[in-house]
Amino acid sequence: MPAPELLARARLLVAPGLSASLVGELERITGRGAEPLEAGGTADGRLLTADGPLLCVGAALPDALRTDRLFWFHSVNAGTDPLLAAGPWPAGALLTRTVGRMGERIAQYVLGWVLAECQAVPEYVAQHARAEWRRLPTELVAGQTALVYGTGRIGGAVAGLLRSCGVRTVGVGRTARSGAAPAGFDRVIGAGAGPGVEAGAGVKAGLGVEAEAGAEAEELAGARWVVAALPLTGATEGFFGAGRFAAMRGATFVNVGRGATVDPVALEGALRSGGVRRAVLDVLPEEPAAPGEPVWRLPRTVVTSHSAGITADEDVAQDFAACWEAVAAGRRPELTVDTGRGY
Amino acid sequence: MPAPELLARARLLVAPGLSASLVGELERITGRGAEPLEAGGTADGRLLTADGPLLCVGAALPDALRTDRLFWFHSVNAGTDPLLAAGPWPAGALLTRTVGRMGERIAQYVLGWVLAECQAVPEYVAQHARAEWRRLPTELVAGQTALVYGTGRIGGAVAGLLRSCGVRTVGVGRTARSGAAPAGFDRVIGAGAGPGVEAGAGVKAGLGVEAEAGAEAEELAGARWVVAALPLTGATEGFFGAGRFAAMRGATFVNVGRGATVDPVALEGALRSGGVRRAVLDVLPEEPAAPGEPVWRLPRTVVTSHSAGITADEDVAQDFAACWEAVAAGRRPELTVDTGRGY
Repeated sequence: MPAPELLARARLLVAPGLSASLVGELERITGRGAEPLEAGGTADGRLLTADGPLLCVGAALPDALRTDRLFWFHSVNAGTDPLLAAGPWPAGALLTRTVGRMGERIAQYVLGWVLAECQAVPEYVAQHARAEWRRLPTELVAGQTALVYGTGRIGGAVAGLLRSCGVRTVGVGRTARSGAAPAGFDRVIGAGAGPGVEAGAGVKAGLGVEAEAGAEAEELAGARWVVAALPLTGATEGFFGAGRFAAMRGATFVNVGRGATVDPVALEGALRSGGVRRAVLDVLPEEPAAPGEPVWRLPRTVVTSHSAGITADEDVAQDFAACWEAVAAGRRPELTVDTGRGY
Repeated sequence: MPAPELLARARLLVAPGLSASLVGELERITGRGAEPLEAGGTADGRLLTADGPLLCVGAALPDALRTDRLFWFHSVNAGTDPLLAAGPWPAGALLTRTVGRMGERIAQYVLGWVLAECQAVPEYVAQHARAEWRRLPTELVAGQTALVYGTGRIGGAVAGLLRSCGVRTVGVGRTARSGAAPAGFDRVIGAGAGPGVEAGAGVKAGLGVEAEAGAEAEELAGARWVVAALPLTGATEGFFGAGRFAAMRGATFVNVGRGATVDPVALEGALRSGGVRRAVLDVLPEEPAAPGEPVWRLPRTVVTSHSAGITADEDVAQDFAACWEAVAAGRRPELTVDTGRGY
């Protein structure tokens, strides 16, 4: 798919949101000047009339670039669902993304919130403010079980870090795997059609590995932590619904994937019943959440404003450079997004 | 030193604070009935008149047992400084202690507070309560440096866990070491006589490894985290004084050792000047701290009520059993306290 000869002729378009230092880096990597897109997100009129294949770096694809002249788009973000949802992807255009140190960042976010709960960090902060000396119950996380939904780079990084604290890590992937569990996981199972009453999402989604639904329900019941690190695709919308939440027995639910993978009504019910002990939500179906949104009033919940997996400029430059090198050599970049599958 | 023949005849005395299930475990391990000490902490009159060497398990040594009939005391705690400070240790009596999973517990405590700060856990909790969506600055701990004072079991466990998050770990021990750094550490240096103005503690204490004072000051200046995991001995009282705090350039100071190793006036000055960014104090010179104590009003400080290194009954039973096995075989238990050195 990559065509080095197109790369040689391609013009470099950069989104208006990029910092000057990042644009400088991109110019250095590509050996050509960058042409800015207009602030409104539509391409400068000149770009459409002038000649040559287009290489664009940014967060969103302007409609004017939804053309077969688009040769390659590099996303400054890891999640490309908003990009793909905005319109049909131009046939043949390469889509790559920035992962950066996202796995590491998200893993530290998850472990940070897990240990903060075990060590009663918010409770001690509040108690200190009252000038009160009292030993609060704390937990050793070692020996507890964490279910991590998503067994790719991010899920694997989360699991690996949890395991360094002695946590037993179970990965839940789209399908069952044979052979050894991938790095970071003690065990990997396939997502069932949905334990209990939940038939919808899984079956609709083709996630069903019926024989493993029992294993998933059992692991959900024993889990102290359930970490959602799923991309948003047609198959994962509403994935965490009434059935999965009903199978939990006091797990804390941490979502570092996408907000729309969670059915908010089902989550609220589980928080009220105690099936979910606490929720740490980095992502929501609609972001940013307005002050009047019900999510702020959920019991024992913290929303962290989509901060877990930020990408820094250096991440974008580094990942783009790796993609550039691959394309220039006629290889498919490792960070290529399957635009059909959605990640 | 251990005398298996004394063990065979020894009577088992247990402190009044021990749980019935733990006492049962001790009886099982020793194969004899336990005789309770009186609630006041003094031994039952019968014990002093009756015959036989004495083996005692508890937190404090009753004065009535400060006799050459005491053959072995097993401390249910890891820190034995209060035990040793209460009076002269009976000559020839073996002192062992419970470490349990204390290294693991303290390591998770330290990492929990480190990551909670990096992930702005208290700030997000407060922001959530205000129903506010805003991305707060967070930090990736990878690549930062932590200085860990104390390179024994606890310091090593702390360093090892920090290192799993990519932290560079520098251990500071009593003396310089040659050869490879112990497990968990990227580097180990000796404590200087005290960087900068601090001559007192180090020199008085015989901690001085003058040639390394420069290395310590340099590492303190570059450290993002300074973790104190020192036992309290004559050599470590006031160890963290004006000199060491003045060498810090915005490190967060975490004390999981002993409160009296810190000069509270020097700490307050460093917090006010910004040399110390935050302080997380699990231990204080006097515990519990009354509501009127100035420690509650220190800026950017949290006191966690000596909760980091709790020992559970299972820890006591397990460590006592290991000591028992060693003594029965005529070996010195690994958990023996050097009563002269103090740990």
